Amino acid sequence: MGEEQGLKAKKEDFKAWYAEVIKQAELIEHTRVSGCMVFRPWAYFMWEQIQKYFNKEIKKLGVENLYFPMLIPKSIIEKEEGHIKGFKAEVAWVTKGGDSKLEEPLAIRPTSESVMYDIFSKWIRSWRDLPLKINQWCNIVRWEFKTPTPFLRNREFLWQEGHTVYASKKDAEEEVLKILRLYEKIFKELFAVPVIMGKKTPKEKFAGADYSTSIEAILPDGKTIQAATSHHLGQGFAKAFGISYLDKDGKRKLPYQNSWGISTRSLGVVIIAHGDDKGLVLPPALAKYQAVIVPIYTNKSKDLVLEEARALLRSLKGVRAYLDDSDKSPGWKFNHWELKGVPLRIEIGERDLKANQVVVVKRTGEKKIIKRSSLNVKALLKEVHDELYNKALDVLNSKIKTVYNKKELYDAIKSGFVAKSCWCGDESHEDELKEKLGAKSANMPFSEKLFSDKCAFCGKKAKYVVLWSRQY
Amino acid sequence: MGEEQGLKAKKEDFKAWYAEVIKQAELIEHTRVSGCMVFRPWAYFMWEQIQKYFNKEIKKLGVENLYFPMLIPKSIIEKEEGHIKGFKAEVAWVTKGGDSKLEEPLAIRPTSESVMYDIFSKWIRSWRDLPLKINQWCNIVRWEFKTPTPFLRNREFLWQEGHTVYASKKDAEEEVLKILRLYEKIFKELFAVPVIMGKKTPKEKFAGADYSTSIEAILPDGKTIQAATSHHLGQGFAKAFGISYLDKDGKRKLPYQNSWGISTRSLGVVIIAHGDDKGLVLPPALAKYQAVIVPIYTNKSKDLVLEEARALLRSLKGVRAYLDDSDKSPGWKFNHWELKGVPLRIEIGERDLKANQVVVVKRTGEKKIIKRSSLNVKALLKEVHDELYNKALDVLNSKIKTVYNKKELYDAIKSGFVAKSCWCGDESHEDELKEKLGAKSANMPFSEKLFSDKCAFCGKKAKYVVLWSRQY
Repeated sequence: MGEEQGLKAKKEDFKAWYAEVIKQAELIEHTRVSGCMVFRPWAYFMWEQIQKYFNKEIKKLGVENLYFPMLIPKSIIEKEEGHIKGFKAEVAWVTKGGDSKLEEPLAIRPTSESVMYDIFSKWIRSWRDLPLKINQWCNIVRWEFKTPTPFLRNREFLWQEGHTVYASKKDAEEEVLKILRLYEKIFKELFAVPVIMGKKTPKEKFAGADYSTSIEAILPDGKTIQAATSHHLGQGFAKAFGISYLDKDGKRKLPYQNSWGISTRSLGVVIIAHGDDKGLVLPPALAKYQAVIVPIYTNKSKDLVLEEARALLRSLKGVRAYLDDSDKSPGWKFNHWELKGVPLRIEIGERDLKANQVVVVKRTGEKKIIKRSSLNVKALLKEVHDELYNKALDVLNSKIKTVYNKKELYDAIKSGFVAKSCWCGDESHEDELKEKLGAKSANMPFSEKLFSDKCAFCGKKAKYVVLWSRQY
Repeated sequence: MGEEQGLKAKKEDFKAWYAEVIKQAELIEHTRVSGCMVFRPWAYFMWEQIQKYFNKEIKKLGVENLYFPMLIPKSIIEKEEGHIKGFKAEVAWVTKGGDSKLEEPLAIRPTSESVMYDIFSKWIRSWRDLPLKINQWCNIVRWEFKTPTPFLRNREFLWQEGHTVYASKKDAEEEVLKILRLYEKIFKELFAVPVIMGKKTPKEKFAGADYSTSIEAILPDGKTIQAATSHHLGQGFAKAFGISYLDKDGKRKLPYQNSWGISTRSLGVVIIAHGDDKGLVLPPALAKYQAVIVPIYTNKSKDLVLEEARALLRSLKGVRAYLDDSDKSPGWKFNHWELKGVPLRIEIGERDLKANQVVVVKRTGEKKIIKRSSLNVKALLKEVHDELYNKALDVLNSKIKTVYNKKELYDAIKSGFVAKSCWCGDESHEDELKEKLGAKSANMPFSEKLFSDKCAFCGKKAKYVVLWSRQY
């Protein structure tokens, strides 16, 4: 604990606010290696909740967890051309073991397609071996040279990567969406953040994929963040890694592949979407402590109040509750647990004992006096979740501006909006937008239909609806 | 699945048996990097069971999970002298990011003391910050140059490492044993393997520790394996990394530290302890499928039998059961699931339907016909567990030879036993034993009392009881 200071205002100096809140709320700790951070228990707990939820869901889909080695020989990671082109600049290389130089440099996985698919070619022989559906939870290293930002751009981060192989393209493509919808559900139910499902433009797709889909969140400052991705890899990797199967008709065929992932990057979304000038605001599903009980007593009433507080704690079944009976002042505790983002604070003092009540303060703002007999903490947590979700939904809805020409599009982005436009598909528009405003396509939402026959950039025939944005 | 061949006899050619069984039972897959293996779902599932069990138990002790970065700057990993001496030869070094040479080489963690304790020195300021109790599940790289053996000696493996800091030496030392007993419990309840708890000799302790304790398993060939360790680090690391706290008395003091771990190495114990010439024999607590139902039918009875088999599957609540309704022959299925080590096979055929019975075959050997109404799969699984444990306990008891002089000691080890002797504490005896027989001290069992006043090696005054063995 220790050194808590006031935070900078989130709106006025976002960067400072973010840097302070993740540190003071004990989510991360920097180490001596730039971009490599400790995920402290308060953050790691959130990650564990995501793991539990996701593991349960993918098990239903027949996906099995396993673990592949982290080190990939240079010759293997370079096998699929498009893939290595996308990752080469950010690979960390192991070149020495003990005092000996290695014969071949080993890449630390920036993603595991290459090391996995090299092995899949051994596992897959006949149609009986399909579909193959596996997933792993692991660490990933991408040696980016941009300024690292905790969670959002770490050089080492944690993720899950699912990899599946199908005989039929249709089955593979169905799974791409099934998984994307699962990610959306995670954001809705655990993060309390609505997201937009869509397809990435070809320029922004995963290196080596046929196409990529993503969920994108829109944050209060109008920037978007790619929160998770689900890729259809087609047959490109199968070709490069020699994965084929003998079909029932006696013919040897190439299978279709997918890969999909969500990473600790997503935790950045929680912090930015919900946090305020007092600190974190955690959705109940991710908070290690969902409710903190703060006893308020004088020297005289201490024993009595603490006893009742303990009884209250015991009565909160199925809730992750914590009694802060430390010797700090109530005011210090209020600030501390607000900073940490605990969804509910329950105050209990001498006066409350007599009136058989507690004071409940939702981290989302409301303060209520509630009779002990009608205290329903689970319902209150649900309220907090819904309030967070609805507020984030308002952001999402209010931050998208529909635009019809280039000026409107550029103006929207410059003034902190996500621009929704029709687009002809010409990548040069993307290049120009990136160069001029540092903005990119977020995705092409599945829910949108062409609302103009003209591309907002050039007036030529429009083919797609795209969200354009500055991005985390 | 695919290519299953008969296994070599375990007793006749252990190395070949081991290599074949882990491959054919789909536990591991070799990759192109020597010593780096895929933990396939059948093996990874076991690891997940260990994780679940352990997480639940350490949570009760107030230990929190977190995640520290994997990359450790050379200057940090070299800070504690004894520590780096123990690990230097097997560190894998990252020297390049993208195309750029790194300013300082980064070690891939061979263990995390150094990277963690460098940070602990920031987190620990006052007595209020103690005890600090954290744990992480992660991958570890040790670039050993001995021949890698899957599970037992991987260059990359998975483990949990707990790290705790206490104000009081007594509290720290109590925890060392608490954790060791927890590891013993895991081996008993999940692995069905009895182990011996004891202290390592100073020569075999963890690099940088005050002392180490371990659990050691004795395998059927008389070799031992260190199955998990719990170390008391004293104040050495605290000194090296500048960890100190302001005590209640206003004085700055050095705290006491522990670290403890269990790794995927432990899965090797399951394989070797219980496996037989037909393949794996898995303890029910670790088996992904605890019971496999094999329907036996003719073309005519197929629908009826399958229907009943499905009903049986549904009725097995709280058991990880699997119905093998593939088109392979019953004989193929028997062999396959025996190879995979599934604890129970339940056969159901036309005749059984009529008699309202099933045929149950325990992987430990027994075959019974059981009326459907009295089928108690959980009780049968308990029987399998107990049979495995008792058999392993027989091995443990029969493989220890109490010896009183050097000849007896050397003879015992040469003929495949673990030698139990009294010892004066002189390391030169250990050196000689290692040189001559390739044997070492396993540990000094807590349960043993001096049974001779003479050291078995030299006849001088004995101080300790030690188990000497060849080791995995």
